[in-house]
Amino acid sequence: MSSSVISVLTRFTNLPDALRKCVPTKIFHHVENPATDTQFRQSEIIISDSDLLVNHINNLPKVKWIQTTWAGVESLTNAVDPSEPPKFPVTRFTGKYYGHFMSEYCVAQIINFERHMKYLLENQKSKIWEKNELTRGYRALFELTVGIMGLGNIGLRVGKTLHMMGCNVIGYGRRSNFDSEKNNFVSMYFSGNDLRDMLRKCDYVINLLPNTKVTTGFLNGDVLANCAERGAVFINVGRGSVISEDSLMNALKNKWISGAILDVIDREPLPSSSPLWDLPNVIITPHVSCVSRVQDMADQFKENLALYEQQLPIPYTIDFVAGY
Amino acid sequence: MSSSVISVLTRFTNLPDALRKCVPTKIFHHVENPATDTQFRQSEIIISDSDLLVNHINNLPKVKWIQTTWAGVESLTNAVDPSEPPKFPVTRFTGKYYGHFMSEYCVAQIINFERHMKYLLENQKSKIWEKNELTRGYRALFELTVGIMGLGNIGLRVGKTLHMMGCNVIGYGRRSNFDSEKNNFVSMYFSGNDLRDMLRKCDYVINLLPNTKVTTGFLNGDVLANCAERGAVFINVGRGSVISEDSLMNALKNKWISGAILDVIDREPLPSSSPLWDLPNVIITPHVSCVSRVQDMADQFKENLALYEQQLPIPYTIDFVAGY
Repeated sequence: MSSSVISVLTRFTNLPDALRKCVPTKIFHHVENPATDTQFRQSEIIISDSDLLVNHINNLPKVKWIQTTWAGVESLTNAVDPSEPPKFPVTRFTGKYYGHFMSEYCVAQIINFERHMKYLLENQKSKIWEKNELTRGYRALFELTVGIMGLGNIGLRVGKTLHMMGCNVIGYGRRSNFDSEKNNFVSMYFSGNDLRDMLRKCDYVINLLPNTKVTTGFLNGDVLANCAERGAVFINVGRGSVISEDSLMNALKNKWISGAILDVIDREPLPSSSPLWDLPNVIITPHVSCVSRVQDMADQFKENLALYEQQLPIPYTIDFVAGY
Repeated sequence: MSSSVISVLTRFTNLPDALRKCVPTKIFHHVENPATDTQFRQSEIIISDSDLLVNHINNLPKVKWIQTTWAGVESLTNAVDPSEPPKFPVTRFTGKYYGHFMSEYCVAQIINFERHMKYLLENQKSKIWEKNELTRGYRALFELTVGIMGLGNIGLRVGKTLHMMGCNVIGYGRRSNFDSEKNNFVSMYFSGNDLRDMLRKCDYVINLLPNTKVTTGFLNGDVLANCAERGAVFINVGRGSVISEDSLMNALKNKWISGAILDVIDREPLPSSSPLWDLPNVIITPHVSCVSRVQDMADQFKENLALYEQQLPIPYTIDFVAGY
């Protein structure tokens, strides 16, 4: 058993090979059964899907650094007592292309929604060529105000792209200080209790908040009633926990929001019994707005490894108190 | 009958009112029946849908300028003997937002195609939440080369937007000279007989050529066989006449192209008997990628009127020899 062997605990079956190709100087061990794998227990460096680590993170005596394979780490942060966080850094895979992928998804879905793509595809299925007020009466992106909840690296990238495409972009973040000069594509910034003020101005609201104790149920109850005047469309690409299915159904039923585009939902996979599936103004995609690619993981691991070996801080180290 | 009254011959029923609001100093007359309307015959300035003019353009003794209401003017150019073009300018409505609308459509449709949105919406209908290789294995825009056929103002705008979104943009145009410095978002330019060279490099090919005698059937026969190696997807937002339905079906059947996104088709409206409707890798929308809005028409008319009154040339005057 060697501590210099890097253990890889993942469902991405081709990740170990991608790592070997990217960092040929290291030995990578694919962990099949973490409960009985002694090499895994002895490793100094571990690469792992965050949810697969939950039962093991407190029982890795030699570990000095863990790199996860995707951005959402709530399964892990929930499993750790924040008053006793790991003494070693656990770093999130942030995917240098996450922001790009999310941007693509949001841009396309807003255009699709404005242009009734779902309806047009139904017409195609029925072999109907029909121009009418609905298919002609769409708004251009430059006529829309999009509010982004969560202005981390992904939220900023999505905002920048939407701004580039013509939207008026406004944003809401946890921090009261915001570098509005550097991020001048965000025309208005809201924080703290001002979320409702932002919601009143939006034609689209995109949730990109991380999943933490603070953000869980953040939009529950009547928060989305603030969208009613402009009839905003709610897009969730962050985490489903920000609003319960009941609150979401209620917001749709009361027409506070004029639609919902959901790549993440409170229950995943969404059971077929959910009433959300059938609503004409709801789009559901199975958590695919953004993907982790093994090549990108290997590239990021290589960069982080260089920092680790120089004993430099690695970016996106999880803060177990903040929860992300 | 006064020649200072401006006649408006259009199906856009709210255009006359938009014009009156935009240019309150002028009198606008809504032509209901052009065959019997004496005011129409006496007008110096006429605003008209181009196809409605066909039977009248050679019988308007007083007219000095005609402004059309959309970009495609083939019905009109086909009706006029190019050796005897009108002695007055006929200007195309180019819609300052046409380029923007087309860009939105192309960006969204490429992202939709890559991410199998049609399949995802079918899954939603069946209440299926399914992640698989298909839904996860999409390419990012920055991994795609998009070739644009037709680099007029709309084509350039579409290219600029796709480049901004990360695509490698290449282009084909009629002219052998191309300002590649000013248009540096076009990484390669092709003209004349080099279309096939461009097609071999494309992941997506967007047709934006105008409908002229030269471009009719331009992609017929085996031209799209040049797309086979990369399996390009063909997007038609220009004019349907660039390829016959048979040639298109043949290209799809032979897998020269891996899909088609058709907002315009050789026959419009496409009859329900067409085999195109049913193909899973074909998207059909009813000529809505771009819309003429009465407010934009009124704005453009106002600008052009100022030029006309100063006896300055009006942009986008139709060249009846070139056919657009």
